[in-house]
Amino acid sequence: MPLLENIRGPHDLKALTADELAALAQEIREFLIDAVARTGGHLGPNLGVVELSIALHRVFDSPADRILWDTGHQSYVHKLLTGRQDFSKLRHKGGLSGYPSRAESEHDIIENSHASTVLGWADGLAKANAVHGRTDHVVAVIGDGALTGGMAWEALNNIAAARDRPLVIVVNDNERSYSPTIGGLANHLATLRTTDGYERFLAWGKEVLQRTPVVGQPLYGSLHGAKKGFKDAFAPQGMFEDLGLKYVGPIDGHDTEAVESALRRAKRFHGPVLVHCLTEKGRGYRPALEDEADRFHTVAAMDPLTCAPLTPSGGRSWTSVFGEEMVRIGAERPDVVALTAAMLHPVGLAGFAEAYPERVWDVGIAEQHAAVSAAGLATGGLHPVLAVYATFLNRAFDQLLMDVALHKCGVTFVLDRAGVTGTDGPSHNGMWDMSVLQVVPGLRIAAPRDADQLRAQLREAIDVDDAPTVIRFPKESVGEPIPAIDRVGGMDVLRRGEDVLIVAAGVMAPSRCAPPSCWPGAASAARWWIRAG
Amino acid sequence: MPLLENIRGPHDLKALTADELAALAQEIREFLIDAVARTGGHLGPNLGVVELSIALHRVFDSPADRILWDTGHQSYVHKLLTGRQDFSKLRHKGGLSGYPSRAESEHDIIENSHASTVLGWADGLAKANAVHGRTDHVVAVIGDGALTGGMAWEALNNIAAARDRPLVIVVNDNERSYSPTIGGLANHLATLRTTDGYERFLAWGKEVLQRTPVVGQPLYGSLHGAKKGFKDAFAPQGMFEDLGLKYVGPIDGHDTEAVESALRRAKRFHGPVLVHCLTEKGRGYRPALEDEADRFHTVAAMDPLTCAPLTPSGGRSWTSVFGEEMVRIGAERPDVVALTAAMLHPVGLAGFAEAYPERVWDVGIAEQHAAVSAAGLATGGLHPVLAVYATFLNRAFDQLLMDVALHKCGVTFVLDRAGVTGTDGPSHNGMWDMSVLQVVPGLRIAAPRDADQLRAQLREAIDVDDAPTVIRFPKESVGEPIPAIDRVGGMDVLRRGEDVLIVAAGVMAPSRCAPPSCWPGAASAARWWIRAG
Repeated sequence: MPLLENIRGPHDLKALTADELAALAQEIREFLIDAVARTGGHLGPNLGVVELSIALHRVFDSPADRILWDTGHQSYVHKLLTGRQDFSKLRHKGGLSGYPSRAESEHDIIENSHASTVLGWADGLAKANAVHGRTDHVVAVIGDGALTGGMAWEALNNIAAARDRPLVIVVNDNERSYSPTIGGLANHLATLRTTDGYERFLAWGKEVLQRTPVVGQPLYGSLHGAKKGFKDAFAPQGMFEDLGLKYVGPIDGHDTEAVESALRRAKRFHGPVLVHCLTEKGRGYRPALEDEADRFHTVAAMDPLTCAPLTPSGGRSWTSVFGEEMVRIGAERPDVVALTAAMLHPVGLAGFAEAYPERVWDVGIAEQHAAVSAAGLATGGLHPVLAVYATFLNRAFDQLLMDVALHKCGVTFVLDRAGVTGTDGPSHNGMWDMSVLQVVPGLRIAAPRDADQLRAQLREAIDVDDAPTVIRFPKESVGEPIPAIDRVGGMDVLRRGEDVLIVAAGVMAPSRCAPPSCWPGAASAARWWIRAG
Repeated sequence: MPLLENIRGPHDLKALTADELAALAQEIREFLIDAVARTGGHLGPNLGVVELSIALHRVFDSPADRILWDTGHQSYVHKLLTGRQDFSKLRHKGGLSGYPSRAESEHDIIENSHASTVLGWADGLAKANAVHGRTDHVVAVIGDGALTGGMAWEALNNIAAARDRPLVIVVNDNERSYSPTIGGLANHLATLRTTDGYERFLAWGKEVLQRTPVVGQPLYGSLHGAKKGFKDAFAPQGMFEDLGLKYVGPIDGHDTEAVESALRRAKRFHGPVLVHCLTEKGRGYRPALEDEADRFHTVAAMDPLTCAPLTPSGGRSWTSVFGEEMVRIGAERPDVVALTAAMLHPVGLAGFAEAYPERVWDVGIAEQHAAVSAAGLATGGLHPVLAVYATFLNRAFDQLLMDVALHKCGVTFVLDRAGVTGTDGPSHNGMWDMSVLQVVPGLRIAAPRDADQLRAQLREAIDVDDAPTVIRFPKESVGEPIPAIDRVGGMDVLRRGEDVLIVAAGVMAPSRCAPPSCWPGAASAARWWIRAG
């Protein structure tokens, strides 16, 4: 008998038996695979949090208790459990958002999807509860990757200081950021993986707790029978405890009973508690588990059996043009190095990393550090190329201005997915960079109109050692080259006519909407340098 | 016999005896008090790092080894030891910069002075050394306050991952951020101090090491005879070790021999090491030590004996107008709360904190967290007022855009020291906010022209619960009120004339340079709201 369709809200979960919960989890996985294959969307992350989402909604009373999701793409199960089961238009007009949405449900709070913010939101909501004298709980779910972001540290430092405010942090530890370092890369890269310090701590936790069921003085005792060899006990030491946070875990995140038990104990504690949950991205769907690159983080509409896309891909991407040119540049220029903030593959640096593993660094979900360490690298005589989605560079605006530009460092920022990005959600539109970055003294900004220009501008940028350059290109596939027929006043002339002057920048120049006859006169400001200081 | 004038560079330090080093330290303190009293500048921080600076330049070989200072205002001693002893025009035209300056010396690297960046720079420089096959050291000096910034965490996470790159982190622990919570505040505020978690760790370190000379297996043994009851031994556990960093300390930072010994051991270790140095801000100058508010962090030109300023202060400050109005608002509106990023006194919130200690939070040097937790506070039904120097809001641009504005949160940002700030150095000019923030959809921006407007605009802002507001004002003292004689098209009319229309914004309107007769026609756009979305 189907269970999911009878779950109209969190209260319907509370009477289910253990067997029914297991059946419900299975049903949700089948639903997700079928539904997301039809529309496209985030699949791997949601398959990983099925049991966790069920347990959260059984233990806490949303919306009085606030359940917050970092990078809201992991909220599909939460949607299914809070009255939203029509996924037919997911991420399409008139359908459900791919992220939490306050317009959809009182159970949704944070809509945006930049990483590492959830603990800050949780701290604010917990403080508001304290001012109002409310004893409701705030629960924040954050991935292990997002803990590499500095905001998470700032928030932990604040949360740990308030021992009387109830706040539960669930670390959804799937040993991955957005896109992990793939297994085929040299061991050297693996050694340098920046989440290493933190992962060593997690590994330490697992190891100690496997070896010793309860370490030291058991504060809360054993919570649940061990599965997979883990005991979910409060660990009396470790960096979170040093900060002043109670720690419960690690818990098998696919054992609903174990997760529930841990969450109930955390709920009873009057103060900040961290529950460490081990989950598997892509759980229950073999093609996702076999995809080591990103475990089906996001999929386009596809056949769920063969995983073949329903619509053919649109041709060569800007990302691949950049990635291939970087491999060539790397061979010619031993001083060129590359940086990524946990997105080696998505930004096109996998080829460079394979060829020159000692010259690429994944700094974690840490754009601030990417920019500042780039200033250090440039000052040390190298030319760093920092590749990042345009929207995420906003995180490093201060560092680009103060550390890179004020110090006249030769750093090349490559902004992928510049402009409107469509279904990725409001927080992923990369439409801020051109306006905001124009205030930065000495910064050079380039917007190539085609692949040839991208390659040329990238090479020009890495030849500049006393100023930073930003090169931006969109998410879409790159079109045919549009060669210039002349050059006037620093601008390329693409067409000649008599009546009208059209000035265009970047990918606005070779628009495929308009036939050449509509372009009586056109100069392309496809590239412009701003030298404000 | 005077020693300082014979120190032309770091090499001249190396032959000095222990007695001579002590005499040199005394001479440097006398020099600093005398010189900074003449010109104004950062006094307290530099008096705290005299022995540390001497030890660094004896142990390491600058400039081959890179000595980096976080928030470069603590670099005066470093300047004295690297050939720069003419402080007669410090922070004045033609004189020494108040910060490190690459134009002044090859021993200077980072010029900017926003906090928490130094570890990122150090990581980049150490990576560059590795690529070049160089074995030189990188040494980063960072305050305990700056470790509350997320960038420091991002960098530690990266530094700890690379166990083969020599990098020495010196934590200059004076138990203060820019301006500490003063002793007269209620205990409640002290309990909420956000550096609490970290300070508890430091306290734990001190306590354990006082109790137990060497904890667990001594990795490097005792380094130096105990002073003040501390042993400077490698501590085998704690959060830094969990991350993968070797830890040495705590060290008495005013015992040159102890600091040197610790640094030499750290230098011999091939990998990242953290040396924990306890120092006293204002060391050796009684008036500074007696100033609990900020230990003479920055002083204006003054009489060094009486501490009386040489020029009278310029009247009432914008900051005090804001601070006093906040106290009144707090009495009327129990839902109004306040946030500061480690600058309670400088931004004028001390009065509010004294009156309503349960409604103010110092989040540490963590502007990102201030903005995101403000979104949480607003969503929790409160109206947060976040007061910050204008230049530091750049750190939270992404959070203001994505977390506050996208979520239509009623948050009031109050930007002090907006505009050009003069002697504070290039990184403290608050001249970016108006350009950058105009891209934020729905954000309201106000620039009051006088104290009356500031009060009115502050009250208007906290009445808005579905959009954020920014109110900006400069460092200078506030002038006389300029009442409007009419209102046209949303702008106040200040003067009427016939020939010329002058439109002015904020403090540009009541300019005291021009007599009223020069203002034939003037409308003041002293306040404008941008409603872009």
